[in-house]
Amino acid sequence: MKRIEIFDSTLRDGAQGEGISFSVEDKLSITAALDELGVSYIEAGNPGSNPKDLEFFTRATSLRHAKLCAFGSTRRHGIRVEDDKNVRSLEKTSTPAVAIFGKSWDLHVTDVIRTSLEENIAMIRETIAYFKSHGREVLFDAEHFFDGYAKNKTYALATLRAACEGGADVLCLCDTRGATYLTDINAAVMDVCRTFGKRLAIHCHNDTGMAVAGSMIAVDAGATQVQGTLLGIGERCGNANLATVIANLQTKRGFSCVPAEQLTKLTSTVRYVAETANVTLPGDAPYVGGSAFAHKGGMHIDGVMKLPRSFEHIDPETVGNERRFLLSEVSGRTTVLAAVQRIDPTLTKDSPEVKAVVARIKELEFEGYQFEGAQATVELLIRKVLGVYKPFFELEQYKIIGEQPPVGDKSDTAVIRLRAFGKSEISAAQGDGPVHALDIALKKALTVFYPAIKHVRLTDYKVRVMESRSATASKVRVLIETTDGTASWTTVGVSPDIIAASWIALVDSIEYKLTKDQPQKQL
Amino acid sequence: MKRIEIFDSTLRDGAQGEGISFSVEDKLSITAALDELGVSYIEAGNPGSNPKDLEFFTRATSLRHAKLCAFGSTRRHGIRVEDDKNVRSLEKTSTPAVAIFGKSWDLHVTDVIRTSLEENIAMIRETIAYFKSHGREVLFDAEHFFDGYAKNKTYALATLRAACEGGADVLCLCDTRGATYLTDINAAVMDVCRTFGKRLAIHCHNDTGMAVAGSMIAVDAGATQVQGTLLGIGERCGNANLATVIANLQTKRGFSCVPAEQLTKLTSTVRYVAETANVTLPGDAPYVGGSAFAHKGGMHIDGVMKLPRSFEHIDPETVGNERRFLLSEVSGRTTVLAAVQRIDPTLTKDSPEVKAVVARIKELEFEGYQFEGAQATVELLIRKVLGVYKPFFELEQYKIIGEQPPVGDKSDTAVIRLRAFGKSEISAAQGDGPVHALDIALKKALTVFYPAIKHVRLTDYKVRVMESRSATASKVRVLIETTDGTASWTTVGVSPDIIAASWIALVDSIEYKLTKDQPQKQL
Repeated sequence: MKRIEIFDSTLRDGAQGEGISFSVEDKLSITAALDELGVSYIEAGNPGSNPKDLEFFTRATSLRHAKLCAFGSTRRHGIRVEDDKNVRSLEKTSTPAVAIFGKSWDLHVTDVIRTSLEENIAMIRETIAYFKSHGREVLFDAEHFFDGYAKNKTYALATLRAACEGGADVLCLCDTRGATYLTDINAAVMDVCRTFGKRLAIHCHNDTGMAVAGSMIAVDAGATQVQGTLLGIGERCGNANLATVIANLQTKRGFSCVPAEQLTKLTSTVRYVAETANVTLPGDAPYVGGSAFAHKGGMHIDGVMKLPRSFEHIDPETVGNERRFLLSEVSGRTTVLAAVQRIDPTLTKDSPEVKAVVARIKELEFEGYQFEGAQATVELLIRKVLGVYKPFFELEQYKIIGEQPPVGDKSDTAVIRLRAFGKSEISAAQGDGPVHALDIALKKALTVFYPAIKHVRLTDYKVRVMESRSATASKVRVLIETTDGTASWTTVGVSPDIIAASWIALVDSIEYKLTKDQPQKQL
Repeated sequence: MKRIEIFDSTLRDGAQGEGISFSVEDKLSITAALDELGVSYIEAGNPGSNPKDLEFFTRATSLRHAKLCAFGSTRRHGIRVEDDKNVRSLEKTSTPAVAIFGKSWDLHVTDVIRTSLEENIAMIRETIAYFKSHGREVLFDAEHFFDGYAKNKTYALATLRAACEGGADVLCLCDTRGATYLTDINAAVMDVCRTFGKRLAIHCHNDTGMAVAGSMIAVDAGATQVQGTLLGIGERCGNANLATVIANLQTKRGFSCVPAEQLTKLTSTVRYVAETANVTLPGDAPYVGGSAFAHKGGMHIDGVMKLPRSFEHIDPETVGNERRFLLSEVSGRTTVLAAVQRIDPTLTKDSPEVKAVVARIKELEFEGYQFEGAQATVELLIRKVLGVYKPFFELEQYKIIGEQPPVGDKSDTAVIRLRAFGKSEISAAQGDGPVHALDIALKKALTVFYPAIKHVRLTDYKVRVMESRSATASKVRVLIETTDGTASWTTVGVSPDIIAASWIALVDSIEYKLTKDQPQKQL
């Protein structure tokens, strides 16, 4: 099977999307997820324009599959490569690969960067040669290549020739304005392929809604690397959606992009990256969306029940997604069954207990819960429905006071009273926010009864406002990740009140820890 | 200019999308909007499977550009056409056109509807002949045509031949599973075109993210009608997005789909239909999305300022959209300058005031602020730096109490004391969450001094937890969208405390309203 390299630029071109902003921690999490999925390259920053990116490159540890790539411009005109400050920032990254972008459309040379066509050629050749002499793998991003090829083919090809002379390992043909037509992409890629015989990458933008198609057509024409972003996020209308490209190439066209066994993690990886990027994944996203294999029309459901391939182009499990029947109560039961059987292996798909769990999950989903990833909450919910769960403590009261100006250096105080083993315990704490204060006070009170709680700490806290058009009275979903130093787990809470939603998730996180550790010692 | 007919199925295939449900009123509004835009056909219902659709067809008034089309199946097997109840429901619609769908993939005939291949041929021919004899224009929807063509070409073509014998006016080739590859679409459409010489329509689904591209390729191969839905909504991953198809065909490929003067209404029509369908239009939707012409990268902004076509494939006004420059740490001083000059047009790129604004923005971005879209906060920030801003009120104190169990039905109470015109005002309010309570209390107190505040209300509220790995003590960014009934604006606040961050954004939203309304009446 022929291999196609996948080059993910979520952390660089994706960060150019409106509303996208990554912290260094976000970048590290996304890098780990992409590496695990098995992409070939991860482009993770432009240290010349964003100094924060240098911290990322320092902290990014060695990866299993992917090569890290830093992104930067050719030297500016009239400056020696070694004196260019962007080049020097890029050099500091010490990533195995660098992507150097330069202009391939003469209009940009004369009217945007405003230098001579000859100087632009020298800028490309010298910058690439510089990084090659420092032992880097160099990809040349031929910015606006297709527009350049359409307007002044000779010059566009001359920029690629300069890159080859500099020693570029890969020529990346960019459709920067995102509007080159499919047949034009095909013809240009074939021409470049024939002329240079180099590794070729395609980099499409989605301004005419055809970035995925353009990437596919370029592969047909000889490109062996596809650049884009896993979610399709990016400047303006975004980049080629790599989740779709990977699944298309691998399930339809007989290419290999990621290890075969990793393809089943495509859906969960996309959802994880979307959550980390705080992007709402559209339900109708091909392959990985919640509706991608959801059947609504009566005749469609009937067809799929008789023969799944009658209305499904692939088995949803191939990409880790699942089939859903929207008007039917059988939906989701198979998924739930697996979780229930982890607690009681004697139950089957038709057990009333399984039906009761499905019903409870549907009820909570209707209220705004989403259980994707919140396994600990699902496990507790199943225990509750099966009647094999007793709470470890009872809340009697909490009170949170937030005030401005603050008292001392903290603006929030929590007071909590709870009960376990027939005894009440009251505690108070201050924090940097209401949830922080509540978390400290809860653990303080509980440690009296359950000393193991002192090792428990929150490692992630996410908030999503739902039905946001109704503003501050809308519902809030809080997702909490907790660790006790060895294991880690996630819980979820929903309420119109962010404190109440956080409380629900906090209590589940503690209850899960105690259930896991000491199922015998319950009150 | 060659004309391509646009056939919109928002109200039929679009209604198969998850979460989509139209009332008769919705359907009438959307029909009027599509007709005004100038599409050729509006497919608006399946009276056989949805009796509510009959009411729609009765009430739909005569249209200016579009023909109304009702949708239904061929007769069932073993039944005479005139005795089939779906056929009779369809007959009652009296629309000028009807779309009759039948099976073109032998697998569906034998394994899903379970009849003989010959009977299926008769079902197609007789049903179409029946509607032709009743004076209707008939489109034959060859369901699963491309899968059928791939597996049993002879039979797939035989179903089209039956439709022609029945008198079909248009042959519509459907990629029902949404996964036929571009080159296969191209080859099949060319073949059908040559064989039958009929008007050909293409109907693509988006399961591989290429419904738009497939439609374009089919037009290249000879199709003269494109079917889809204006927003791309539909079963599973949706249908071909007609907004994109129309703009692509008309601005890139030299075809005419809607009257030239109507193309500038594309963006507003799409947004109106999305609003009516209760669908969130993605910001990155090609041509019509809020980000479609939004520039974020510093070099992109610089290029567009020098020469819009350097990074824009068309003038945004062509489709009724607009250009936007986003503020972010990756964008440069030019964007800031434009915002500063709206307040003081005498300042230039090198004025110390502009440098001071840039420095302040960078400082706040470092603290976790993000100004994209938060134009109102940026304007206030600039006024503060330029020294042309005085606050309208001063906070003396607020106190929020959140408690469980709740007091009455509300869990949160806010008490606020503020000062304006030398007087203090204290107010209290309860809410469904701490921010909700604070918002009500703030407006209650301020309305005493500024009566216009009573028209101000929040329309959107977003929360983003940053550096989330450090959990509940991490920073929180709150984005608030506010309206006073005529204008709307967005503000942002950052703090480790979600209440404090919301407070900052709330205060900015109020200050912006007052600055906008009555710059003279400041304390």
